[in-house]
Amino acid sequence: MGIEFPHRHLLEIGPLSREDIEVILRTAANLKEILRRPIPKVPTLRGKVVANLFFEPSTRTRLSFERAAKVLSAEVLNFSARGSSLEKGENLLDTVRNLMAMGPDLFVIRHPASGAPHFVARHVRIPVINAGDGFHEHPTQALLDLLTVWERKGPDLRGLKVAIIGDIRHSRVAHSDILIFRKMGAEVYVSGPGTLLPPEREALGARVCLRVEEAVEGAGVVMALRVQKERHGRPLFPSWHEYARFFGLNRRVLAQAAEGALLMHPGPINWGIELAPELEDFPGQVILEQVENGVAVRMALLLLLLKAGEA
Amino acid sequence: MGIEFPHRHLLEIGPLSREDIEVILRTAANLKEILRRPIPKVPTLRGKVVANLFFEPSTRTRLSFERAAKVLSAEVLNFSARGSSLEKGENLLDTVRNLMAMGPDLFVIRHPASGAPHFVARHVRIPVINAGDGFHEHPTQALLDLLTVWERKGPDLRGLKVAIIGDIRHSRVAHSDILIFRKMGAEVYVSGPGTLLPPEREALGARVCLRVEEAVEGAGVVMALRVQKERHGRPLFPSWHEYARFFGLNRRVLAQAAEGALLMHPGPINWGIELAPELEDFPGQVILEQVENGVAVRMALLLLLLKAGEA
Amino acid sequence: MGIEFPHRHLLEIGPLSREDIEVILRTAANLKEILRRPIPKVPTLRGKVVANLFFEPSTRTRLSFERAAKVLSAEVLNFSARGSSLEKGENLLDTVRNLMAMGPDLFVIRHPASGAPHFVARHVRIPVINAGDGFHEHPTQALLDLLTVWERKGPDLRGLKVAIIGDIRHSRVAHSDILIFRKMGAEVYVSGPGTLLPPEREALGARVCLRVEEAVEGAGVVMALRVQKERHGRPLFPSWHEYARFFGLNRRVLAQAAEGALLMHPGPINWGIELAPELEDFPGQVILEQVENGVAVRMALLLLLLKAGEA
Repeated sequence: MGIEFPHRHLLEIGPLSREDIEVILRTAANLKEILRRPIPKVPTLRGKVVANLFFEPSTRTRLSFERAAKVLSAEVLNFSARGSSLEKGENLLDTVRNLMAMGPDLFVIRHPASGAPHFVARHVRIPVINAGDGFHEHPTQALLDLLTVWERKGPDLRGLKVAIIGDIRHSRVAHSDILIFRKMGAEVYVSGPGTLLPPEREALGARVCLRVEEAVEGAGVVMALRVQKERHGRPLFPSWHEYARFFGLNRRVLAQAAEGALLMHPGPINWGIELAPELEDFPGQVILEQVENGVAVRMALLLLLLKAGEA
Repeated sequence: MGIEFPHRHLLEIGPLSREDIEVILRTAANLKEILRRPIPKVPTLRGKVVANLFFEPSTRTRLSFERAAKVLSAEVLNFSARGSSLEKGENLLDTVRNLMAMGPDLFVIRHPASGAPHFVARHVRIPVINAGDGFHEHPTQALLDLLTVWERKGPDLRGLKVAIIGDIRHSRVAHSDILIFRKMGAEVYVSGPGTLLPPEREALGARVCLRVEEAVEGAGVVMALRVQKERHGRPLFPSWHEYARFFGLNRRVLAQAAEGALLMHPGPINWGIELAPELEDFPGQVILEQVENGVAVRMALLLLLLKAGEA
Repeated sequence: MGIEFPHRHLLEIGPLSREDIEVILRTAANLKEILRRPIPKVPTLRGKVVANLFFEPSTRTRLSFERAAKVLSAEVLNFSARGSSLEKGENLLDTVRNLMAMGPDLFVIRHPASGAPHFVARHVRIPVINAGDGFHEHPTQALLDLLTVWERKGPDLRGLKVAIIGDIRHSRVAHSDILIFRKMGAEVYVSGPGTLLPPEREALGARVCLRVEEAVEGAGVVMALRVQKERHGRPLFPSWHEYARFFGLNRRVLAQAAEGALLMHPGPINWGIELAPELEDFPGQVILEQVENGVAVRMALLLLLLKAGEA
């Protein structure tokens, strides 16, 4: 059917042009129709094998890719770091080369080391999708976030202010989102505890604000990041209570955002910390739309990377 | 084909009428024929997605549901508490809402908290099957136990004495079995260590006996419960040795049961504790029939809950 | 199609005749063609269910069987020791009997106890494949190793010298490989640390050498075993450094092998211990061919054990 997509892998947002991003999102928007059929299944990728390599725990991202593959009739080969040769100390490249013998057509990789998917991509002849690498990037999250904003705000983001609140320094979600929203013409403001902010006033084109209110004021999109309790060895802020008080979002803070502002979160949510429980029925809360769009965006990427170039 | 079943969920035995139970069991008995074909597969639920949510370790129940789904050509989405967002502290409702975006048609839920499946059922628009919730109920186990008794003793249980031996207080299996066998007209007697018995002489319509012999005498069905070594923080009885001596079943105790009595156990068995090894070839031992009937009962429930109301 | 194979199970190398082994390997060689098709899938075992029972962690062996089954359109039922009834202390036979109720057509079993697959085979009416049992055997590894040597050296192994280096005493791979290469007419020499060698000068027909150079000299096949860091409670040799120095393979040692010698390893590899990193591009290195042949050999065994005797 002559699908055109100029990239072999999906490793990070940087190399994608605006046109590339628009192709992915239009494809995803079209594929959502399939997800809503009574029997959401098409034979498009029958016989293809998607290998999920998850070296960190994950529910939603792994299941989202698995669901995307199955709707398109691809097979899924799940490899997780537990109960595997990794416990025997095998190196990443050997693991990947061994899995190649299982005949996969595409790798989806989540890894605690930044750059791991790039490293793999240099050593295999099949497409690689980065499903999150260390503190670096999570490009499919950024794409699904953008799709969610498109559906609510339209594709022209010029003049839109996006506020991202939380652990900006360690968040691969923040990193990818800053890049994609900047690329599409939005302004991005970030805020969070001083220890979790980049030291410069500008970071990747985002404006760094010490006060949450400054970031949120007039924003059309407010995105809370997850406080990653399980990541931090040493605490980087005094207590959950203080985090919630100074950086948690609630109705009072969101009242300063623009009329009809969207509230987003990549999940899983710590209610009572980064989001006040009262926000569960906030009118612009689109968190579950993000999840559904995640399946659609991953379907689009599987299709574009596995079908591009085929006659 | 016009299947009629008046319940949206299968959460507990209480709300089921005798007729409901008979519909489930007759459907299961019919479906067993498929299980015995050389290629046990029918397209009945093609395109449907069954989401298994297991928040406690389980072999047989999860595999039994998975097998039931696959024989009917449904897809299975396995979610277990390990390696998942739960380790990141996500709450149950968020987990379930996120999984909804994966497009499941039915949830099967095992959870350590009593009432968790009911809670989920109130928040989703798809059927929920309780696969065991805390100390509360395990209704599919009761249905498969009843089917096993039906096949051996016929459907009229009036006058049948059923003895259940073990940790009555904490057993969700005992709870559901007492309810279903009472509802179908049998008499139920329970016994076990005093610390593991309800304090009242009658519990849910069952007669509480301090001595095992009193419960077993004349019983047509004797059911041993599993001693759940992994559950008890503090020991509730002095030692395994004493448990086996006073409450373990053996040929001597079963000699007091009725002629042709059935010996049942929900598994996994601690041989030498609740059952003496000599009972492995006891003539009325139907433990593996219970397992096979488990697949049939779960097929019936998937069919009834997913197809009822369809034209 | 009238497949003939005189064995019900594949438990160990001993009972296989040379003819049996040739049938398996020729079948595997034929099936490799399917693996290289754009859509590697045939309906040969549609409706069959392969139950993987892994009581030890494994990546490649489990995935290899899973892939083999799926290429032949069999369903796979994965059972692993974690998150299962085994944590509740269920015995092996009860676990297997319970799984029988799920309707499997063949068991693949890996177990830390030598003889566990044999024990299961005596109690079930379906074929059992040993995927590694304790210190005993790993017959599918030996078959894939032999296929790899055949493809490079031809089927007549008379006069070929095979050197196996490492923990000969505890290695089920070494055990099965010694048996199969001896049976096919090759000479087998083994070497490793004195504490990890059998005390006799001859073991299973292999010549035991204290010095690696003696084993490798003139060998057409050199096989390094994995140092199983995770197995040994007490260290059986002084340090990794000393192991690598005296028993690790490198270009200098391999220079003493025959012209065109093959370098093999069952994986996962500890680079820098049993193999020097410089061997990654050694011309006769066929480690990934071994992995690919593993899928082919397992496809052949599934086919022979499930189809033999069918009209």
